[in-house]
Amino acid sequence: MEITEFVERSVGNWRSQRSAHHLAFSHFEAIESEIEILSLSLDDLEVVELCKSYDIDPKTAVSPFRMSWSGTTDWDEKEVMEGTCILVPIPDATNLKRGKLLRDRGYAETMAAAGNYHITEDDTFVLVTEYDRAAAEEKIWFVNPNVRCRVSLIKTSAGTGVVTASFSSEIRQAIEK
Amino acid sequence: MEITEFVERSVGNWRSQRSAHHLAFSHFEAIESEIEILSLSLDDLEVVELCKSYDIDPKTAVSPFRMSWSGTTDWDEKEVMEGTCILVPIPDATNLKRGKLLRDRGYAETMAAAGNYHITEDDTFVLVTEYDRAAAEEKIWFVNPNVRCRVSLIKTSAGTGVVTASFSSEIRQAIEK
Repeated sequence: MEITEFVERSVGNWRSQRSAHHLAFSHFEAIESEIEILSLSLDDLEVVELCKSYDIDPKTAVSPFRMSWSGTTDWDEKEVMEGTCILVPIPDATNLKRGKLLRDRGYAETMAAAGNYHITEDDTFVLVTEYDRAAAEEKIWFVNPNVRCRVSLIKTSAGTGVVTASFSSEIRQAIEK
Repeated sequence: MEITEFVERSVGNWRSQRSAHHLAFSHFEAIESEIEILSLSLDDLEVVELCKSYDIDPKTAVSPFRMSWSGTTDWDEKEVMEGTCILVPIPDATNLKRGKLLRDRGYAETMAAAGNYHITEDDTFVLVTEYDRAAAEEKIWFVNPNVRCRVSLIKTSAGTGVVTASFSSEIRQAIEK
């Protein structure tokens, strides 16, 4: 699978159940959220700006998209977690299965981030993002067109210790028209 | 990675945090358990008997092991889930990365089961087991020598619907001598 197909299959509305395992103290956190993934146009102003902020030619981008989420956690039932970010794949010139993914903000820190992605032979999308004090590794795969799984690991920046391991099961929602 | 190395890296004592997502009704279940994985000898009587029950020559087996677990779930805090099973890999004659895995009982049903495994290019062990009324797909990978992740999906036997998606993060425990 190439990145273009991966994004195409991801577009839509998803209901997500996420469990985060905080490993040091064996804590389980349960998060329920709605996720919307929208395809963006290559000449979208925000896409062009994000490329420029990384000194990357916007012409090398493919399949940019916006991801928005709104959810609640059992850690703090009063808190509604909401956010939105733009993601822009920049495939390697010679290989659409490998490249960079630009984001205007990251998961682990609320700042822009560029990760390295590749897609494995069994169609798992793998994204590794290095932050100042942490590294995130994410694996996403489709079980069928309407079910996606996602495993995210947050590691210490040395890369050996795993701080949080989380798992999402995401089910496609019918869109009411 | 070949199956022999996968088993070798798995041997030991693990503390497991498992989250099960029961998708139809968006329920989260949290399970904490201790898992022990012990290497067995190829001439272990139970290993030989399990092979024979599948009409398989015990000489084709490699790296048999016993897995035992003891855990509690937040669904029923009084219940202690305990079990043990023997697992025997039977690699393909030409490819140690692919083959059958015999078990003297399964996860989804308490009966013997033979699944098909393969190990991907990024060293993920994938096991698919067909039962009468369900199919189980399991992916296990090492984040580092002391952290293992495991995603298990239980599907309806038609194979399209996912009933339960569960995720375990497993941390190696020091063994007291």
